[in-house]
This record gives sequence, structure tokens and C-alpha cells, in this order.
Amino acid sequence: MKIQLALDRVDMDEAIAIASAVSDSVDWIEVGTSLVKEFGMQSIRTMREVFPHKTILADMKTFDNAAYEMKLCFEAGANVATVMGAAPMATIELCKRVADEYGAHVMIDLLNVSADKVDELRRLTGVTWCYHVSKDEQEGQGTSAVSLSLATRPTGVRAAAAGGITVDSIPHFSRLGVDILVVGSAITKARDPREAARYFREVIEENANERELVER
Amino acid sequence: MKIQLALDRVDMDEAIAIASAVSDSVDWIEVGTSLVKEFGMQSIRTMREVFPHKTILADMKTFDNAAYEMKLCFEAGANVATVMGAAPMATIELCKRVADEYGAHVMIDLLNVSADKVDELRRLTGVTWCYHVSKDEQEGQGTSAVSLSLATRPTGVRAAAAGGITVDSIPHFSRLGVDILVVGSAITKARDPREAARYFREVIEENANERELVER
Repeated sequence: MKIQLALDRVDMDEAIAIASAVSDSVDWIEVGTSLVKEFGMQSIRTMREVFPHKTILADMKTFDNAAYEMKLCFEAGANVATVMGAAPMATIELCKRVADEYGAHVMIDLLNVSADKVDELRRLTGVTWCYHVSKDEQEGQGTSAVSLSLATRPTGVRAAAAGGITVDSIPHFSRLGVDILVVGSAITKARDPREAARYFREVIEENANERELVER
Repeated sequence: MKIQLALDRVDMDEAIAIASAVSDSVDWIEVGTSLVKEFGMQSIRTMREVFPHKTILADMKTFDNAAYEMKLCFEAGANVATVMGAAPMATIELCKRVADEYGAHVMIDLLNVSADKVDELRRLTGVTWCYHVSKDEQEGQGTSAVSLSLATRPTGVRAAAAGGITVDSIPHFSRLGVDILVVGSAITKARDPREAARYFREVIEENANERELVER
């Protein structure tokens, strides 16, 4: 299981400081939507400069104008970009097409997507589905990604989970076969982010080993 | 009927040049999502500096993290901000609350919103609903906002229309009582944007006068 470090609601200096502290323990660095909207594509370019070899995800949350937005972030150095599952299929399919041209990858954010739309999304393979409970829902309703059912996930699609994820939820997501765990404040707001990230990695490895033993 | 000039897929110099050329004929200046994501909040701050007295709309297309994103754009000088109607109600209501604190206004973008969600949105008055056919749908399917039904619009809510709008569609939207016409490439891509905007304004005034005569 990969760790995607979500960086949001910080300035670029803080984002770089946190990412530098934890980069050994995390797999993907997410430039969050708030950084994209506050600092524009400079946020992606800066991260690419500082981390030339890391996988960088641009949380574009694209809803329209897919070709232009995807090109923006891939040209700036992103390897992965998000599109909203609630967007029109034309937009989502266009994101995938542009990502393919760049050798990049698309993550579909399933936030607030209807069951019918989930069914429609099944026809698009080679992408990642991100099961997501939003920040505003977490704060308003006290929910987190642990409450989500991942039963809808088709074959040929990777799964990510995002929203209020803590170390305690690792066994749950490990059992569900989640590929990417999106972790924000449990690392970035920890007293010692480096130590928090290391602990996430450690518990993920333990769970992977245990599952391997069970499956033998 | 107001004209909202939508600026997208240009750099800031071009955006300023177009807006300066047409500002006498348009009411609101929209800093499009592509400018927000490419140049960050600097795009809003620049527009506010150049047009200290114009109504500036930030096409944030917020889907989560409402309080932070609304504060970002209102602090940067926007008077109006968009939130996606497809976002969770918690996010949309939070956008409205923050806008109220700033004496600002929220436009709900109805792009790809289900009929059920439209019903849910009725409980939030004092906002603008933007009936919207996306750029990707226009290009993929040849549709435009003229094809949309505005029958769902409740009282206490202003209506905007966006997506492939031309001068020819003014009588249609005027009859429907649309308050804000969002115009992009029909002005920005015109051979003479100043003249195109002036003509939009002229036809809008003519239609308003005709309607006044009819209604007497």
C-alpha cells in the first residue's frame, strides 16, 4: 500500500519543509487543491524542482476544460492528476486521453458521486478511483473514509482512500486491498511529521506481512 | 440582463488587455478556473488592482474545503465565487456562510447536477444558479446553454446561463428572465472584442426595451 502525502492549506515553504521531512516514508506527494488555487502551477513546478524523482499528484479536481487543465499540470511536472467523478463523462474521458499522451495517470475523485455515475465510470479502466470523504463532511458530520464501502470497485482499477485517515485505519484499508492511502493532517499536523510518517510506513509493512502470512 | 465576461485559457497580460478593451460594455469580470489554477490568487489580485470598481467573479468551482477557498478569493478581491452544485451540501452551505461574512455572493454552478440535487439546492436562497453546459460537452456534443431548461429555478434565486452563448441567444435568455449572461469566446475570440461586447450590450438593451413594451 502506497502513502500519498496530501499537502493543503500551507504556504509553499511549509509544504516543502513537510515534504522534505517525510519524503523517505511516503510514495506520492500530493500538491493539494488549495495550493493549486492559491499558488497556481508554480506550486507543481516548485515541488518537481525540489523532488525531481518523486511521483507528484496534482489535485486539480478538474470538472471541465479537461485538456487544458491536464496539460497545465503535466507540463508543470505532475505524474498524476485528479478529475471529479461527478464531472461529465466527456471531461473524465478527455483527462484520461491527455494523461495517456503524457505517460501520466488519472485519479477519479469519487466525492459525492451517485451510484448511477459509479456504474458509468466502470467503462474507464487504467485509472485510480479515490474513495473520498470531504474535509467539509468530516468536519460537519464527523465521518471519515473508513465509513465508505469499496464494494463498487471494478477490476482494472486501482483504489485510493482519502478523508480523515489515521494509522488506526490501516488494517481496515489493508484488508480491503486499497492501493493508495491518502494521508493529510495525520502526518502534516503531527507534532513530529517525520516520526508520524515513519510510523504509518511501519504499520503498513506490518499489515502487509501479516496478510501475506494469512494468505499462504 | 448583466454580462459576465469569462476569461479563460489566456495569460494575465491577455486577460487584462481583453478586459480593458470591453470593460465599458460588461458588468462582471470572471477570472476563469483556468486562470485560477494556472496563476493562483495572483490572478484575482491583479484583476482587482486593474479594475478597482468592477464586480469580479472568481470561478473557483469549489468542491471541498469551502471556508479556506472562499476566504482565499474574497481576500484577494473577488466579490462573487462559484461552488459546484454537485458538491456536498455541507460545502455549498459553507460557501454561502463565508460569502455572507465578506458581504460577497455565491454562484452555484449547476454543471452535471442531478434533478434530486437541484431539489436539495432549493433550500438555499440568496444565491445565483448558473445553468451551465461545459466546454467539454460543447466541443464533444455540439450543445450549448440554449438547450437547458430553466424551469427548475426557484424564487429568491438569480439565474445565470453559461456555455456557448452568442448574440443570437439573447432573445431566448431574455424571455426566460435570465439575470446574468456568461459570455466567453463570443467576445474574447472575436476579431474585435470591444465591438463584440458593445453589440452584446446593444442587443440586450433592445430586448429589454421590447419586453418592457410587451409587458405594458
